Amino acid sequence: MRELKLVGFAGSLREKSYNRALLRTMVELAPLGVTLDVLTIGDLPHYDGDLDQDGERPANVDAFKAAIAASDGVVLVTPEYNHSLPGVFKNAIDWASRPGYRAPFTDKPVAFATASAGPIGGMRAQMHLENVLLGLKARPFPHPGCAVTFAPSKFDEGVLTDEDTRDFVAGYLAEFADWLRERRG
Amino acid sequence: MRELKLVGFAGSLREKSYNRALLRTMVELAPLGVTLDVLTIGDLPHYDGDLDQDGERPANVDAFKAAIAASDGVVLVTPEYNHSLPGVFKNAIDWASRPGYRAPFTDKPVAFATASAGPIGGMRAQMHLENVLLGLKARPFPHPGCAVTFAPSKFDEGVLTDEDTRDFVAGYLAEFADWLRERRG
Repeated sequence: MRELKLVGFAGSLREKSYNRALLRTMVELAPLGVTLDVLTIGDLPHYDGDLDQDGERPANVDAFKAAIAASDGVVLVTPEYNHSLPGVFKNAIDWASRPGYRAPFTDKPVAFATASAGPIGGMRAQMHLENVLLGLKARPFPHPGCAVTFAPSKFDEGVLTDEDTRDFVAGYLAEFADWLRERRG
Repeated sequence: MRELKLVGFAGSLREKSYNRALLRTMVELAPLGVTLDVLTIGDLPHYDGDLDQDGERPANVDAFKAAIAASDGVVLVTPEYNHSLPGVFKNAIDWASRPGYRAPFTDKPVAFATASAGPIGGMRAQMHLENVLLGLKARPFPHPGCAVTFAPSKFDEGVLTDEDTRDFVAGYLAEFADWLRERRG
């Protein structure tokens, strides 16, 4: 069984973010033969086309892009901000979207999940993210969706503790790994 | 005729950005009795809920929010990045969206425009922005849309020079001003 190296990042910078906690839990729930490394995005500058030139691009942007490029797939976990994606999260994607259609995200398989305190689970952010992923010519994982609703009742001290939700998330990651292995043979 | 004070910001940081040029041209084309002040967004930090606390919030965030709150309306001009809003642009909106529904954008009239090098004119960014504005409980200006297509042929040295497009943009701003005056009496 081929080893799979995934990378992921979360769309919130808040220390006690449920989405950061969900991504940490995914690291733990990754199936056998799959590693998931968490990338940070808070230190990336705002995207600026004038900075996005060879010789000008910050070293941490290059490292971020290289990590995505070298991965077998990406796991994105984000809250919904104002019915869309957090700016800081989209900013990281914007850096990794260049140069257009020859970028780290080009043809890259991407799984994605959201968590929210309420009953909607960040689903509007997922819908915008689907648009973005197709705009990137990435390969969004076809799945009915992975969302954690009513997060405060399902996490404890930064860990996803609700057993049914843990099983669902573990199953989602297992299906993503199966899909990656089927795709690549 | 009541004076109207508008503020605006552009979604690109690039020095030669067409969208920044469009916003500068709008300052010039604002109708009689209307001023449009340009706000900067590149110096705002990434949104972080831990920073968004009284005593922690950076002074430039407070100033940015106060300028929006004090305005009669906002003019947003943005490119489309990856079929959605630029992260840096959404980040500025995210700061001004808090506290939820008691924020600078709450009930604020907002006009919006996009420019692109190609034939679509950034319209997918406008559609996501419409979702965001309703999520903010802002008041998006009801209009068929203001977009500049094929920007390289319509700008010269950072100024919108195409006469038909200048007339269209001036008309858009005049209609927005009329709508603001009708709303407020």
